[in-house]
Formats: sequence, C-alpha cells, structure tokens
Amino acid sequence: MFTSLKDKLINSKFLMDRLNKWSWLGKIANKIAINLTVNSARTRPHPWSTVHDYVSWVSLTDKKWSARHLPADSRQRKLPDTLVLTELFNRGEQPQRMSKKSTCLFPAFAQYLTDGFIRTRMPSENAGDTAQVRLQNTSNHQIDLCTLYGRTQEQTDALRVKSEEKGQKGRLKFQLLKDEAFSPYLYDIEGNLTDPEFKLLDPPLGIGKIQDAQQKALIFAVGGDRVNSAPQVTMINTLFLREHNRLAEEIEIDHPDWDDEQIFQTARNIVIVLFIKIVVEDYINHISPVEFNLKADPSVAWNAKWNKPNWITTEFSLLYRWHSLIPENMNWNGDDYSPSRAFMNNKPLVDYGLRQGMLDMSNQAAAELGSFNTANFLLGVEKQAIDQGRLARLATYNDYRAYVSLPKKKRFDEVSSNPNVIEFLENHYSSVDNIDFYIGLFAEDRQKNSPLPELILRFVAIDAFSQALTNPLLSEHVFNENTFSTVGWAAIKKTSTLSDILKRHYGNIGDNEFIGMTQESWHPE
Amino acid sequence: MFTSLKDKLINSKFLMDRLNKWSWLGKIANKIAINLTVNSARTRPHPWSTVHDYVSWVSLTDKKWSARHLPADSRQRKLPDTLVLTELFNRGEQPQRMSKKSTCLFPAFAQYLTDGFIRTRMPSENAGDTAQVRLQNTSNHQIDLCTLYGRTQEQTDALRVKSEEKGQKGRLKFQLLKDEAFSPYLYDIEGNLTDPEFKLLDPPLGIGKIQDAQQKALIFAVGGDRVNSAPQVTMINTLFLREHNRLAEEIEIDHPDWDDEQIFQTARNIVIVLFIKIVVEDYINHISPVEFNLKADPSVAWNAKWNKPNWITTEFSLLYRWHSLIPENMNWNGDDYSPSRAFMNNKPLVDYGLRQGMLDMSNQAAAELGSFNTANFLLGVEKQAIDQGRLARLATYNDYRAYVSLPKKKRFDEVSSNPNVIEFLENHYSSVDNIDFYIGLFAEDRQKNSPLPELILRFVAIDAFSQALTNPLLSEHVFNENTFSTVGWAAIKKTSTLSDILKRHYGNIGDNEFIGMTQESWHPE
Repeated sequence: MFTSLKDKLINSKFLMDRLNKWSWLGKIANKIAINLTVNSARTRPHPWSTVHDYVSWVSLTDKKWSARHLPADSRQRKLPDTLVLTELFNRGEQPQRMSKKSTCLFPAFAQYLTDGFIRTRMPSENAGDTAQVRLQNTSNHQIDLCTLYGRTQEQTDALRVKSEEKGQKGRLKFQLLKDEAFSPYLYDIEGNLTDPEFKLLDPPLGIGKIQDAQQKALIFAVGGDRVNSAPQVTMINTLFLREHNRLAEEIEIDHPDWDDEQIFQTARNIVIVLFIKIVVEDYINHISPVEFNLKADPSVAWNAKWNKPNWITTEFSLLYRWHSLIPENMNWNGDDYSPSRAFMNNKPLVDYGLRQGMLDMSNQAAAELGSFNTANFLLGVEKQAIDQGRLARLATYNDYRAYVSLPKKKRFDEVSSNPNVIEFLENHYSSVDNIDFYIGLFAEDRQKNSPLPELILRFVAIDAFSQALTNPLLSEHVFNENTFSTVGWAAIKKTSTLSDILKRHYGNIGDNEFIGMTQESWHPE
Repeated sequence: MFTSLKDKLINSKFLMDRLNKWSWLGKIANKIAINLTVNSARTRPHPWSTVHDYVSWVSLTDKKWSARHLPADSRQRKLPDTLVLTELFNRGEQPQRMSKKSTCLFPAFAQYLTDGFIRTRMPSENAGDTAQVRLQNTSNHQIDLCTLYGRTQEQTDALRVKSEEKGQKGRLKFQLLKDEAFSPYLYDIEGNLTDPEFKLLDPPLGIGKIQDAQQKALIFAVGGDRVNSAPQVTMINTLFLREHNRLAEEIEIDHPDWDDEQIFQTARNIVIVLFIKIVVEDYINHISPVEFNLKADPSVAWNAKWNKPNWITTEFSLLYRWHSLIPENMNWNGDDYSPSRAFMNNKPLVDYGLRQGMLDMSNQAAAELGSFNTANFLLGVEKQAIDQGRLARLATYNDYRAYVSLPKKKRFDEVSSNPNVIEFLENHYSSVDNIDFYIGLFAEDRQKNSPLPELILRFVAIDAFSQALTNPLLSEHVFNENTFSTVGWAAIKKTSTLSDILKRHYGNIGDNEFIGMTQESWHPE
C-alpha cells in the first residue's frame, strides 16, 4: 500500500522507529498513511452494482447486489478458457513454497474476517439457483462479527442465553467440554438440531458433504454459515465467544442493576470493536510491508470524505480468495490435520482445546500467496473464482491497477519476475491489457516484506480502513466510555492482537509460547 | 435557520441582491449557509434509537427503529395531562388566522414530502398492534419518491408498465381521464382490486373509514399509503407521474436501443433529483426567512463531515405535524372541498384536472402554523402527537433548543409574545424547562418572514440539507450526465419549482396564472 513516492521515507528505519515511539507524530503519520491509502481509489457511493450496467436507484440502494469498483466490461475480447487459466494456480509436482512471514494464524483470521463481511451468495442446492446468484451477497456490509452473533436479529436471539438470573445475563449460549467453553453443538448424533431455535441459523455451507455422523455432531451452532468450514476458523470464533461471555460477566459484576439485554448489547459493542482493533493493529500490520505500526484511531475517519456507507463489492469477493495461503499439510498437536481432512472437522479443536490450536496455528508457516502454489484440493475453487470474474464481467487487471492509482503494466515481465508466470501469461493473452483481474492479482510477485502482491495489498488496505473505520461504533459521538462501560473501555484500550485476548483466558501462556500471525523468527527482507 | 449573529448580514437587501446575482459569490454563500445550518446540531450516526435507552448494535444499525437526536428522558417529572395540553391547538370560536406568506400548495407539498420520508409505522387494525409501533418507521431513509415508486422493488414492479413495445417503454401505469393522465384506480366499484399486482402495494391508510363505494373507486394505485389522504396530495403525485412518463418518452426517442428497464431506471433517477431540487429551491426557499435563494448544489455535501447515512428520527415524526397549516375551508374550482370533506376524496382532482388543482392550491392562503389555530377536525391528531412524544420519552423543548444551538428560553414570555399562550404555559408547567417538545414547537411565535416558528425552522433546515443533499444520486461520482441521459441532465438544470414541471405539461399556463407556494402578493414583513 505504500509504494512509489513514499518508499524512501517509509524505508527509513530511523524514521519508523521515531514514528512508533513518538505518539503525537505517530498519530499524524497514521492519519496521513491511512488517508493516502484510501484516497488512491474513488470514494463511495459506488455508482454501479451487479444489478444493472448503468446507474439506477437499485444500483445505488439495494445492497443485496454487490457493488462494483468499475462498471461491467462491455468490450468484445477473446479470452482464454478458464479451465486452462486455472493452471496458473497448479503447483504440479513442485513442493509448496512456504511463507517466511506468515503463520497459519494469518489465513485463519483472514478467512474468519472475510466470511463475515464479503458473503457471496451461494447457489442453494434445492432452490434451482444458478451461478448468477453469486453476483449477490448476504452481507450486512459492516464488520459486525455476524460470524459470532448471526446476520439477523432472530439469529442473534437464537444464539443468546435469555435470562435475568445472576451469572447468566448477557451471555451467548455455550457448552463446557473438558472445562472449556465452546459453542453448543448444532446437531446431535442422529443429525437433529440440538435446540429448536437453531433452525433460525443459516445452515453450515457444505454440510451436505458431511456423511460421517460423528463429524457432523461436532459442528457448532454459530452465527456464520462458513465458520465450521475448518477447525482453525471455528477456533477464532471460539476465542470471541469466550471473550463475549467473559466481558458479560465483568459487566454484570460492575452493573448488578443492568438487565440481560443491556449486558448483552454492551458486551457485543465491545467485542465488535476489539475485533476491528485486531483487524487493523494485528492483521493489517502483519500484511503491511512497512515497520510503522498502524493504529485503529477512529478519529481519522470522522471528517474524512471517504467516510461513506460501506458496500461490499464484487471485486472483493474475488481478490480475497487466498487459497494458496493454505498449506497442503497442517498439524494439530502433532497430528496430521491437512486441510482436506480438516474440512468441516472440529475434532482437533475439541480434542486439544483452544490454547493448543492457537499455538499450533502460530507455529506453522502458511504457504506463500501467488502463482503455482495452491493446494491441490483447492484447484476447483480457483476455477470457480475465474469463472465468477467472467460472470461479473469484470474489467481487466490493468484497468483495476489504474483504478487504485498504480501504474499499468506494459510488458508481461513487469507483472512477474517468475519466468514460468511470464511464459504462462504470454501463452494465453495477446496483450497485458487483456489479463483477467483474478489472474493478474495472483500472477504478480509478492510485495517485499508483505505476504501479498501489490494490487491485492492496495485493495485490502483501502478496504480495511475505509470499511472498518467507518463502523458506527467508532463514530464521533458513539466511541466513548458510555457506549462500552468502564470494563469495556479498558478492554478496548489494552487490545491490539488475538494474543492479547487469548492471554485473558489462559494465565499460563508463557512468554516463550508464541501466538501471532507474523512468524516469531521473521526479519524484514 | 439564520438567526442571531448572522441576522444583520442576512437582512441586508443589497447583499442579498448581489448574492443572488453573482453566481460565484452565491455559490460560496450557499455553501456557507448550508454548512452553518447543518453544523448547528450533532452529525450522524445518532447513537440512540427508540429500541434501547443505551447505545447498541441494534440502535446503530436497525433502521426500522427511529433514531433519536437526544436520548430517552429518564427524569421523573410531573407532566400535564395530554388531553388538557391539546387545548393549545384549539382555536375555539376564534376565526382561523391565515398565513400572509404561504399558499395551500405549501402544506400539500410538505405533506407529500414527509409522507414519503418520515413514515411513522402505524398500528395495523388487524394485527393487535399497540401505540408502541409508532416508535418504529417504514421509511427507506432516503428522499426516494416512494410515494410515486413504492417502498419496495415488488411495489415498483407492480406500478410499472413492463413492455418492450414502442411508446410503452419505461412508463408507470396510468389511465386517461378526459385526456389527462392519472394513476390507475386501485379499486373497482365493487371494491375489488383493478389489477392483481396491486395487492403488493401498501393499502391506503384510513381506507377502512371510506364507506362510499363511489369515493373508494376514485382512490388511485400509487406508491405511498398516505398519498390518497387528500386530493391536493394526490395532485402532487400526479404531477410527478406525468413527468416520469414524459421523460420516459423523451428518453425512448433519444435512445431507441435502450430497453424498458434502462428507460424506466433513468427516468426514475431524473425524477428523484427533480424532486430534491424542488425540496431545496422551491420548498426550503419558501420556508426560509432570508431573501437569498438557496440552491441544491450537490457539491456542498461531497466533502462535508455531515454527509453520513440518513436515518429518520422520532423527533421528526412530531415536528413535521403541521396540522394548523390546513385551513378549515378550501375550494376546488369554486366548490367547497373543506378538508373534512376532502379526506381521501379524489373527486375534485378528477373533476377539474391537475392544472386547475395546482392553480386553486396556489391561490388560496394556507392557515398560519402555531398555537390556537388547528382546524377542529384535526384536534384529535394533535393529541395523538403529544401522546407520541410522551411514548418516545422525548427530552424537553429547551433541551432540543440547546441541541440545535439555540438559546434556552428562561421565561414563558420568551417562548411566545401571545398572552394567551403565555398564560396557557404558565397554567400547565411549573417551569419553562418542563415544556413538552411538541408543545414548545408550536407555542413559539412564527419567525418573521417564515411560515415556521424558530425551533421547527431550524430542525427542518438541518434535515432538508443533511438528508436531501446526501442522496446517492447527488454524490460526487454519480451526479453527471451519464446517470441521467442528455434529456434528463437538461431537465435537472431547468427545474427549480413545481411550476417549472407543470408548465412542461400545460403550454397554456399564462404569465398571469400563478403557481407557487409563496403567495403572489407576499412582501417581506
């Protein structure tokens, strides 16, 4: 996100140290960095959505259609077959390249975040839906932890303990397994719902593929239909479930006069903001190639012209498909839980507990994002992604580079330094200007010191700031102690990372036990 | 909206003339005036809504609950009985005071505007609803002409001619009565729907009170459930219906390759913006005490910190109840159609046509807004309004004055110069600080040169700018000729008033035939 002009300044270690140390200067630099990033693209409202090829009241207001950064491409161009293009992701017999910066906690958090926010509408198996529905979304267009709390009021209610009894007020439903709190199971061993209220939840995506009754009985009742897709994703949700209930308990002690509803709503206010703080200060700082620590300073957005209503875009539903981050092999407590085996399988999380899962994910390298590196079992979804870009008639890779104020690439060897990628692009495209958006995104070299290539990095940074910092809980007249209670305000101040939260639940995480998205051994390149 | 400090400047006739004449200076003055007005209150998002007494994710996101400018009042105060307070509106045997500035076109337009935007949810007769539902709304929170187009996609579809035939593309359904276009009738003489699609429309509010089959058969099928409440409101809707279809015809001629959908959506884009232009340049300029002509310049909002998502407030559902504007007597083409007789009665509009209606409404004085002046048949709804303020536990009149940066009143004789009002307030309130919001709003003297008292005026101005100019069609990357077509862009440029539109449909409105919200004979006080 900080390339070109700003490079020299930003690469000064001396300057970065000072900025991180001097809080007033850091605050200004933070504001400048965020504004420079967000202002590299057009501000919302987006004129177009996937509903019409022109501006309409529907395209401006009906958020079930995904917005568009660029209008539908009406140019007639002969484009390569998408199955052929999928080869860009196929690592063949090569060993998977592993990331030197990212741990497996990074893709776990990225998936949890995007599954709550992007939410491409998926064809329903029974409804005779076509691929066309993927132009829509089921997002609330807010970072609202719908993964934990549900998308709708009814789902939230179904997930809550509703009680005015002491010790129960404001809690989310949970079960204790070996003395640790998890979400309740969704199904019993017969495959029936464990709680009639759970029929209001969105069914877990892909549940039809789970034949094993034992495995299905480990699926958790949660807010998001994608949370159960892998144990490391359920793991993140479990962490926030526990933090919600911990905060509810603390609030209940501080405010014995508050009812169930007020305690629940206040804990939810806090947890959403903790999550946003982690998005910026843990996740984005991991992604950023710069050593300057970005802060989730809400005031940056208050007067910003980019503080306009969020609306998830169809481009984002593609550029966040980081399948190649997922390693072919993954262990939980030393046991092999490679992703194909871990698909919708919560067993390792239940067996080894949250702490062990967080440690395991923090101490294994993620794979490297980019070309020729996707785990084999995910190649099918790479093709789906390329097809979806065609369905949405997205503009080209170079169009999108120009859109976010990056120079267009003129030659194939400017896109990538990898001869295999250059050859691949030359073989399939008559011109750099014809490269599909999705192909260009992942054909690019990874940016130095970042886990992401340049165009993805730019988009992610724009989006993270312009959609996270516009959250109503961070707004000028809401972001104050009254909204969060004394307990909550203190928790917000002392939370920057997933590790900060985990430590509140396990006093016994030692200084030599590492939790983080950035590998413990990482040094800038 | 322009009181105190700014008074002297603004009352300079010389300066106002220059501002209106010199466009560059006028543009700056316009921006300053609008910003000064809007910034006199807190910017959105509002922390509270009617759902909770504290900030919650629901209060920040679920727009079916009306927002609050000030939080629910939890003070224990002994307040006068609301039936007793209704006497403030009762003119008794006194003749109704008539406005020297406003014609009946003003309340007709005000009602049409607010019925599309405020939309207090009304208790349904069958659903066992209580008064409690009035804390909710059915608004889309946009000035979107839902009165014409419906609140939902399904309603919009039901109101459209869907055809790719020449001469039909993009049109709203209509019927010709004496060669003039009106909306189709909703019911036949047996009381059945004339079109099965109309079951998707919201039933007209109050239809249960209409026993006369002839009268019921004159109800129009329109987008808004309140449009049929009076013929002068249906009249405004009819004007925009015709303008929509006129524009669709022009667009069809210019773009023979466009389909039904694109022509419809483009005409709708245009008509919504025409409506917003009229809101600012006709309606707000009528309300404004200043001779400077405000313009609906979209660029004023693009970088404004107050450009935040709209959300109708519970306070607005009260402060816009301008019942006392409605005269006891009203004529259509010389026939007596006093409001009680005109209730849900479209006969005069159908009998005499749109042109005559617009002339009639423009050539009769509205009554004067304020105390002891409500038409008798509306006293019941005044009581409902006071009750609703109590239901919403609104803060006091003085709290709201402070909120919009007006000085609090210290003595009863500062609220009003009318001895009867002063005596009334003294009799019922122990202190000025206890005056109910709704009572204070209408107890105040009318502002010099405006049809409104000071506090209402301030709120209306804040709202008009901060919710109209934030319309997505006016946003920076949408407000351009592409969005509206050449035809539409030209129409937008040449429209400031209802009269501008009417003249496009009747070549024969002479210069000596007056159409307007401000009386032809009006001179500043």
